[in-house]
Amino acid sequence: MPRIEGTNSILHPQYIVGFVDGEGCFCVIISKHNTLKSKKEVRCIFEIEVREDDKPILEAIKKTLGCGKIYLLDYTRYSKWRAHAKFKVSNLPEIINKIIPFFEKNQLKAKKRKSFEIFKKIALMIQNKDHLHLKGIEKIEALRNKMNK
Amino acid sequence: MPRIEGTNSILHPQYIVGFVDGEGCFCVIISKHNTLKSKKEVRCIFEIEVREDDKPILEAIKKTLGCGKIYLLDYTRYSKWRAHAKFKVSNLPEIINKIIPFFEKNQLKAKKRKSFEIFKKIALMIQNKDHLHLKGIEKIEALRNKMNK
Repeated sequence: MPRIEGTNSILHPQYIVGFVDGEGCFCVIISKHNTLKSKKEVRCIFEIEVREDDKPILEAIKKTLGCGKIYLLDYTRYSKWRAHAKFKVSNLPEIINKIIPFFEKNQLKAKKRKSFEIFKKIALMIQNKDHLHLKGIEKIEALRNKMNK
Repeated sequence: MPRIEGTNSILHPQYIVGFVDGEGCFCVIISKHNTLKSKKEVRCIFEIEVREDDKPILEAIKKTLGCGKIYLLDYTRYSKWRAHAKFKVSNLPEIINKIIPFFEKNQLKAKKRKSFEIFKKIALMIQNKDHLHLKGIEKIEALRNKMNK
């Protein structure tokens, strides 16, 4: 089992499961294709957003999961909002090879588990290129509508 | 190490640390005494609030920590807010004997760790009855102002 020594080190998997049950998001975004307007694009994104001063915990999560990127979000338009930091995994191979196996091995316990199960199905459908035909897109849309309710 | 089998069972301590780093709150409330208006009351409260459909995770946390109570919060006044559930520990002996030792053994990693350290100091000052004299109250107020910044 990995040792825990502050946020610079590898985190215990159960720590990540608890943090993600509270703060994580499994998102599926369906949008029109940039150039082929009749086509739709589907993207799976796993992300965690926290206040900027908690960025070190995102760095430790990134290191432990071995994928993803961290972005700083500066909400200057909203004067009452502090800057946030976001850990984001949107690369499909990373989702398939890192994120899904991690949460299959270390199961979520709150309602986010249901979102993860749908997210996983859709990611595998994209890998299988089901999103490139109408029937697949319809199935993906129906699944996505069941998420985060 | 405790086994994890769904939310009815004991949770791994690191799961709780991760969840609390995301969603927990260490609060210190200073208010005027109900009858002796010149005196102040100080209360330490540890709480976690989630949407009502995640109440089972609070039940598992309550079971694992061996203290606290769960409340349902019905925000009918705010039509867009769903009902929430809150796990709350406000009993001082439970805070001293259960909550503080748990988070000393299983250290928080995000900025909430600083809030916990101040919360712990204030809880021990209350146990020591420092809150019953002016100098103690002033020190508690100064400490409290450093929390959750």
